Amino acid sequence: MRRWNGWGDDQFSLDLPEQGGDFLSARIGGGTALPDAALDHVCAQVPESRLPVDPLVTDLIDKSPEVRVRHARGQSLADWLALRSGDIGLFPDGVALPQTNTDVRALLQYARDHDVHLIPYGGGTSVAGHINPVEQGKPVLTVSLAQMKRLLDIDRQSQIATFGAGTPGPLVESQLRAHGYTLGHFPQSFELSTIGGWVASRSSGQQSLRYGRIEQLFAGGRIETLQGTLDIPTIPASSAGPDIREMILGSEGRLGLITEVNVRISKLPEQESFHVVFFPDWEQARTAARKLVQNRVALSMLRLSNPIETETQLALAGHPRLIGLLERFLSLRGADTGKCMMTFGVTGSKAQCRATLAEARKLCGRYQGVYTGTRLGAKWAEKRFTMPYLREALWQMGYAVDTLETATDWDNVDNLMGKMESCLRNGLADKNESTHVFTHLSHFYGQGCSIYTTYVFRVADNYQETLVRWQHLKNTTSEVIVRNRGTISHQHGVGKDHAPFLSVEKGQLGMQAITALTQSFDPSGLLNPKTLLD
Amino acid sequence: MRRWNGWGDDQFSLDLPEQGGDFLSARIGGGTALPDAALDHVCAQVPESRLPVDPLVTDLIDKSPEVRVRHARGQSLADWLALRSGDIGLFPDGVALPQTNTDVRALLQYARDHDVHLIPYGGGTSVAGHINPVEQGKPVLTVSLAQMKRLLDIDRQSQIATFGAGTPGPLVESQLRAHGYTLGHFPQSFELSTIGGWVASRSSGQQSLRYGRIEQLFAGGRIETLQGTLDIPTIPASSAGPDIREMILGSEGRLGLITEVNVRISKLPEQESFHVVFFPDWEQARTAARKLVQNRVALSMLRLSNPIETETQLALAGHPRLIGLLERFLSLRGADTGKCMMTFGVTGSKAQCRATLAEARKLCGRYQGVYTGTRLGAKWAEKRFTMPYLREALWQMGYAVDTLETATDWDNVDNLMGKMESCLRNGLADKNESTHVFTHLSHFYGQGCSIYTTYVFRVADNYQETLVRWQHLKNTTSEVIVRNRGTISHQHGVGKDHAPFLSVEKGQLGMQAITALTQSFDPSGLLNPKTLLD
Repeated sequence: MRRWNGWGDDQFSLDLPEQGGDFLSARIGGGTALPDAALDHVCAQVPESRLPVDPLVTDLIDKSPEVRVRHARGQSLADWLALRSGDIGLFPDGVALPQTNTDVRALLQYARDHDVHLIPYGGGTSVAGHINPVEQGKPVLTVSLAQMKRLLDIDRQSQIATFGAGTPGPLVESQLRAHGYTLGHFPQSFELSTIGGWVASRSSGQQSLRYGRIEQLFAGGRIETLQGTLDIPTIPASSAGPDIREMILGSEGRLGLITEVNVRISKLPEQESFHVVFFPDWEQARTAARKLVQNRVALSMLRLSNPIETETQLALAGHPRLIGLLERFLSLRGADTGKCMMTFGVTGSKAQCRATLAEARKLCGRYQGVYTGTRLGAKWAEKRFTMPYLREALWQMGYAVDTLETATDWDNVDNLMGKMESCLRNGLADKNESTHVFTHLSHFYGQGCSIYTTYVFRVADNYQETLVRWQHLKNTTSEVIVRNRGTISHQHGVGKDHAPFLSVEKGQLGMQAITALTQSFDPSGLLNPKTLLD
Repeated sequence: MRRWNGWGDDQFSLDLPEQGGDFLSARIGGGTALPDAALDHVCAQVPESRLPVDPLVTDLIDKSPEVRVRHARGQSLADWLALRSGDIGLFPDGVALPQTNTDVRALLQYARDHDVHLIPYGGGTSVAGHINPVEQGKPVLTVSLAQMKRLLDIDRQSQIATFGAGTPGPLVESQLRAHGYTLGHFPQSFELSTIGGWVASRSSGQQSLRYGRIEQLFAGGRIETLQGTLDIPTIPASSAGPDIREMILGSEGRLGLITEVNVRISKLPEQESFHVVFFPDWEQARTAARKLVQNRVALSMLRLSNPIETETQLALAGHPRLIGLLERFLSLRGADTGKCMMTFGVTGSKAQCRATLAEARKLCGRYQGVYTGTRLGAKWAEKRFTMPYLREALWQMGYAVDTLETATDWDNVDNLMGKMESCLRNGLADKNESTHVFTHLSHFYGQGCSIYTTYVFRVADNYQETLVRWQHLKNTTSEVIVRNRGTISHQHGVGKDHAPFLSVEKGQLGMQAITALTQSFDPSGLLNPKTLLD
């Protein structure tokens, strides 16, 4: 069953190898776990629902405490601390589970008639507070699209598939695979996040280099709004005015509820493999990565770890003997202290894969890259969606882990990465605490790339202080990001957590434009208030 | 000097080979040219300017009749008929030529202070009425960005270049070429159209398969609006809410005046070549084209002519002996009556070109494609920007030529192309006139492609009737397009001519969203009224 107070399925866990614990302990000290609250204890705190009764929607709404608890929070570290402490504060007044567009329209009618706030809910995987209720003196109804999870149509000639918006990643892929197709959208949250959530939050998957971000995959769909139904037809490309798709992408539930999504699909590739190359230092590694994408080497995936992430990954991998052998092999070839690990994917027809791999290896060689084959790449592929489970293992050891991510132009990558890491690394110095910080670049464009920074710190001896520490790290580093030409989010979205930082990159007029859109669709502000625009 | 009443430079002309005239005459009858009005005759009709005097902008504005005539119309067939007949109707009350952002802000201030309508003007190449004044009882000032035509900055690492918005195609490419870069945006209007116009109208270039449409190339920029300056920062990709870039793209001057454009540039390729393959029939040809793009064969350009376009192009090419030899060669290999010509481009490093060409030839062979090498492809490349001059040659022979274009999903391409061609072919039957109609597909996506249909008809014995005939063909076929899942424009934009057809694809709520945006930026409707939204 799904874990109510953390990530994923409670029957699955990932252990940190012993060496991993030692590695962290040596860097930031040993941890002491905080006590977890029990589900029934939390359920007992859930107040009576304020939702007005209306026969129109009675059958659609579940007001039971456990369901309300399970839909109260996402997966940000603040959410995590709230859930583990049991101090959740606010709960939705009920959870609706519509099955059809008619149901969704009835819920919108209900919201309008009774002045109820609606929160659209996909997989509940937000790490930016998208689905958290806020107190505004009105009843809050969370609308889960979980029942709308079917492949509704597939057009093989046009390679367009239509899904119910609540379809989670594995069901998207398995339903397509049965027909010989793939969407190719693989965010780390793939196990739980949904196709509608990807659109609403402008998601990006690990193989965006081949398949594109969700912006490129989203071909059209249906959005139920307070003003009626918005149908966006599938058209390959158009110069007919501003693109309505692009207004829905990233709208985070403020314009309406996405109920159906048309996506551009691809035939399952003939071949796919993931390869690992080590570079002697960051300068060579980063330059090689930039050249790979600027020279249009047709990789399907690219990820580059900086020296500390490389060291951390090797330490946390387990198998110390094998890793030792690998490190000796690399050292003899010039990749020693300071080395950086690059993982790349090659996908397509046999001929395409052969040509691309040859081109990639040749280019990496020019920057002293040491090619190590597909063994580590296969490991990466195997674990690509289970990494969030590591948070649970770390939590049990008294460590909190979180990530901050952005994207910026190539000329600014080192500057911004350096400032983010340094802000996080020194952020708890006045508490005499250290933070372990490392980064990879994982989405590449001719113009620049994403920067994905992970930080681990010890929990304090109480929840309140742990939250204060996290908020300090999060807020100061978010400020560093937007003041240094980074977007407040490359792939997680805005939600409530990033909303205060949005105006720096959008500008006053950009904010005004987004506000004009939300007011046009939702003049009373009933949909997901305080998300996107605070 | 630029032709005041037609396309391009008046020192350059393109002749139709004799066989071309015979070919058309056999199909739609011989033409008789209509008399052209003289420039001084038209200038004499220009009324006194209604622009209020304001020292803030006096030096920026030219009110001379000739300049006003030269900025009164674009390049649609209706514009062409107006210019050739001399019956132009409306003229702007003046033309401003700002040099700086400060100048543009002064012009916006002037518009606000004196209730003057502004029309942003790039290269004046619109074929949809973007820059034509409309009578609304207010003075109209056309703002030409022609003086803002410099490369302002180039960031080699991030491959971003910044241009003044009025920079025309050849100056974009020549200024980049000096640094070893290309933008790769080559619309047929390249000679005259500008980088700001490309953004404002969501333009697409002939090599969009490699370089992307302007949506992919536009990285950010500066837009001067009535509410202040909107600066869009360059960020490679972001999930931070709706994308402001996508609101400016296709805004057609309704939100503000684009003054600076940041674009994503590429290193000049090592190699480039264009190849021609003939297929025995449309079914094989269209399937091969679809497979090329769905299989991600990395072509830089792809164009597929249907049988009538293929026949027409060969007839109009001149060199009947050589063409005869080619046709015998093709006929022996199965491509005879009904054959279709495909042109494709291969661009990149030597290794990439070699691999892509091999892949493309192999795939074409599977559909009975007969490869003929690069000779015809080189001809295409040589003439790619001069085709609009052919309109002049046809005009002198008494023929009017125009195009209609759209895009749709693969499953609908034949249906829509057939209906468009048939509507045009039979459109003048009740006048006992024939229309020569042919089509190519020229922009390819996994999901579908563009459909670009050309039609030639004889001018009537007066301008008025010629315009009536054109309007009938244009309007009935535009209706066919939007009622059959096509966009009203894949690459020409909306302007005033397509505005009545826009709501079918955007829907009532989509129109409301665009209106909300324009009202937010321009509540009094001073900017380019009746364009985009009628």
